Amino acid sequence: MAKQEDDFKRVISHAKEYGYVFQSSEIYDGLSAVYDYAQNGSELKKNIRDYWWKAMVQLNDNIVGIDAAIFMHPTTWKASGHVDAFNDPLIDNKDSKKRYRADVLVEDYVSKIEAKIEKEVAKAAKRFGDKFDKEQFLATNQRVVDYQEQANTILKRLARSLEKEDLADVKKLIEELEIACPMSGSKNWTDVKQFNLMFGTKLGASAESAMDLYLRPETAQGIFVNFLNVQKTGRMKIPFGIAQTGKAFRNEIVARQFIFRMREFEQMEMQFFIKPGTQQEWYEKWKETRMKWHLSLGMGEDNYRFHDHEKLAHYADAAADIEFRFPFGFKELEGIHSRTDFDLGSHEKYSGKKLQYFDPETRESYVPYVLETSIGLDRMFLAVFANSLQEEELENGTFRTVLKLPAVLAPTKAAVFPLVKKDGLPEVAQEIVDDLKWDFNVLYDEKDAVGRRYRRQDANGTPFCITVDHQTLEDKTVTIRYRDSMEQERVAIDDLKSIIHQEVDMKGWLKKML
Amino acid sequence: MAKQEDDFKRVISHAKEYGYVFQSSEIYDGLSAVYDYAQNGSELKKNIRDYWWKAMVQLNDNIVGIDAAIFMHPTTWKASGHVDAFNDPLIDNKDSKKRYRADVLVEDYVSKIEAKIEKEVAKAAKRFGDKFDKEQFLATNQRVVDYQEQANTILKRLARSLEKEDLADVKKLIEELEIACPMSGSKNWTDVKQFNLMFGTKLGASAESAMDLYLRPETAQGIFVNFLNVQKTGRMKIPFGIAQTGKAFRNEIVARQFIFRMREFEQMEMQFFIKPGTQQEWYEKWKETRMKWHLSLGMGEDNYRFHDHEKLAHYADAAADIEFRFPFGFKELEGIHSRTDFDLGSHEKYSGKKLQYFDPETRESYVPYVLETSIGLDRMFLAVFANSLQEEELENGTFRTVLKLPAVLAPTKAAVFPLVKKDGLPEVAQEIVDDLKWDFNVLYDEKDAVGRRYRRQDANGTPFCITVDHQTLEDKTVTIRYRDSMEQERVAIDDLKSIIHQEVDMKGWLKKML
Repeated sequence: MAKQEDDFKRVISHAKEYGYVFQSSEIYDGLSAVYDYAQNGSELKKNIRDYWWKAMVQLNDNIVGIDAAIFMHPTTWKASGHVDAFNDPLIDNKDSKKRYRADVLVEDYVSKIEAKIEKEVAKAAKRFGDKFDKEQFLATNQRVVDYQEQANTILKRLARSLEKEDLADVKKLIEELEIACPMSGSKNWTDVKQFNLMFGTKLGASAESAMDLYLRPETAQGIFVNFLNVQKTGRMKIPFGIAQTGKAFRNEIVARQFIFRMREFEQMEMQFFIKPGTQQEWYEKWKETRMKWHLSLGMGEDNYRFHDHEKLAHYADAAADIEFRFPFGFKELEGIHSRTDFDLGSHEKYSGKKLQYFDPETRESYVPYVLETSIGLDRMFLAVFANSLQEEELENGTFRTVLKLPAVLAPTKAAVFPLVKKDGLPEVAQEIVDDLKWDFNVLYDEKDAVGRRYRRQDANGTPFCITVDHQTLEDKTVTIRYRDSMEQERVAIDDLKSIIHQEVDMKGWLKKML
Repeated sequence: MAKQEDDFKRVISHAKEYGYVFQSSEIYDGLSAVYDYAQNGSELKKNIRDYWWKAMVQLNDNIVGIDAAIFMHPTTWKASGHVDAFNDPLIDNKDSKKRYRADVLVEDYVSKIEAKIEKEVAKAAKRFGDKFDKEQFLATNQRVVDYQEQANTILKRLARSLEKEDLADVKKLIEELEIACPMSGSKNWTDVKQFNLMFGTKLGASAESAMDLYLRPETAQGIFVNFLNVQKTGRMKIPFGIAQTGKAFRNEIVARQFIFRMREFEQMEMQFFIKPGTQQEWYEKWKETRMKWHLSLGMGEDNYRFHDHEKLAHYADAAADIEFRFPFGFKELEGIHSRTDFDLGSHEKYSGKKLQYFDPETRESYVPYVLETSIGLDRMFLAVFANSLQEEELENGTFRTVLKLPAVLAPTKAAVFPLVKKDGLPEVAQEIVDDLKWDFNVLYDEKDAVGRRYRRQDANGTPFCITVDHQTLEDKTVTIRYRDSMEQERVAIDDLKSIIHQEVDMKGWLKKML
């Protein structure tokens, strides 16, 4: 755990030091759970977005994109269920004036019980050595059995009370467990209240009635309300999909883990419209397709796993997550949801308009079912960044920090160096930059010894370093040095472009999905 | 004027019919002054954004990008002047409950006087025929001279009152002119009040103090607050620039003209940090560079002009617009502003932190001056779209509607058709699609006669149509047909990719800026 925390801290500080992610409004001491993407981060984020868009929209004849506004008519959120049901149960401590998620307080209490179990297990394992059988110990040690039962009882009661919206009982539970405010130690609690996670604002159009708007909490609804317009003007036939990337906003009370859970974040969602009854088949298909997309980046099969949901959201008849091994453990990276006709059906009801597809073959009209793939762009950024950051011991016993980003996603594709700042080498290096820049993001660096410049670009995530030396003046060759292997090769200047294209072009990477 | 309005209506209806722009939340009868980009529009918008990004960031060694959040610390907007000064003077009619911009009510009144002048001029021109001298008439006809004086007196008083923030006098002016509510005819007005154009929301982090946030009204401040972090981690030397694209929000009371003025819109801004005293030189340089970018798209030199500002904003010491000929006349498309050290200086004051650049050569520290280029992505979209939409009379006397988008920006680069739906032609066409799609957005269409398919792609803005016929089966050639010239050529399937690359790749277009 301590190692995990250290690793994660290193990720966050590297992200700042190398211009990937800054805290928002840092000069004003920051804005909690909001981050800005810096000069390298904005390029990495853009490249991830493009890689997704290309895979989803450009490569699929039957998927098109849209770019709907963040502002939508407020009835949208009535129909989607967000106005009534997108809540967290909150409780305030009257002494410290701090606000908490009531369910998280209880869950944290249960975590402490679980920590006690772990401690018992660790003690026993030490005592029994090789002969220790964990399963048997958990089932037979009375103290541990009691802890387990206590934890289960609490969690069951919490789940039941939340499901029945019995918030008074959630408060009672907190009081019975004598949970204290982590800040003040006080047990003086207010009632538990539901708190809607949508950010509200007002559209001031007329004197008497400013319209209450919400910042969208998900991009999906922008696709649903446009479904019929896209289908008709795009002459789309079912099955077909609509994809979108864009900002969404959630007023999270407990927002943490760097860019993993932010109040302002970006989604990449695709809604696939299908014939009712075919959802199981498409659910399997999209789980597989999306996993292939992830694997195409070469970040290690072991770092991904599926997690099928047992408890389903009100709109779903099947749901799975693609989980990734983040520095703090396996967590959701992408969701694949079979949303049935819940959304379109609900928008029909609230708008009074038909949202049906006319099937030209069967000559029937129906409300399509929807299969959704939904991935957080910021989470994907964190997955790529954290997984790529490595400390390597070199042959000479020193260490290097290297950011082994998939070359297709790297912000800068190549750095060009003159070996020394004289003899016309800077001019030749600059010429190479001026030629390559039409195709790639490249940079020029002449400061410090070449070895140090290599290290800087390793930490920066740049896959290629190109060095111009005196031999270059004679035979128009340069040294190209590869970030991951640190191998160096002598190549002709004229071949640089095709060597780099070969390694960084999206189409080559995406073909790994086939 | 009627023709202009007709043209503009045609632009709006074509944008909907061909999947470029839909009204937001149309199934809920829309959300005023908010629009969604549809399947073709989202691609066009993305291509414009990429074309800008590539020109500004990728091609300039000394410009980097960032992607700052929409949410920023609220003190940012105190420092920028938006909390205190980003207002419109509003007045409500007590009977109709309608709200208006007080200055617009007065300006509309003056427009009516100007219309009377125009009418007198037209009458006189008709009366005097060839002998009519407009200048002389305006200077000597007593009725016209009176009108002109009346209009000038009103506008001067309005400007003076607004400058002095004498809102009581603005109301008095409205009453003296007996301006009535356009909806109800009532002259029963409230006082004039300043109304801030920023959208507010609340970040609910703790019980007692929800934090008041604003949706950013411009992206520029996200660059200023990150200036020092980018400069240091990116090792940037002055002069250097930071570019950003992203959403901004303004609670406009009078929002109109389709996507020209929206409440939610996207900006593409670049702040160039320079040494104080060099601003005039950089101002000229950036005016020229930005104009070259526009001209590289080949939409006609006559459609652009500079408009230098006489009245400057509080932060500027020089400012000019690049205006474009929209369907409703020449209007601002992009602004180039010499912002001095206003913003950085103000953030220093409000944050208590130094925002200075240390010049390694002179070993002096200073607050840099800033040269800004700021363009509305939605306006640029409208400029491109409206300018490209043309009705052409063909040789046979019929008309075609063609959307002559610059090929580099077109959403779909090529459409592939089988001549007939049999004899294996669809399969060959599909193979071509499956090959080209790795490089470009392409589509397959087999419905209707080929002539009709051509027309559909003309209206869609697709620069190339590729037709597979029986000869294709024999010699592996196809017909390629060019949208603008309607010329057709027989080419080898193997050459298609390079023909299309040649015409659509950004680098070729951007090289026209050189």
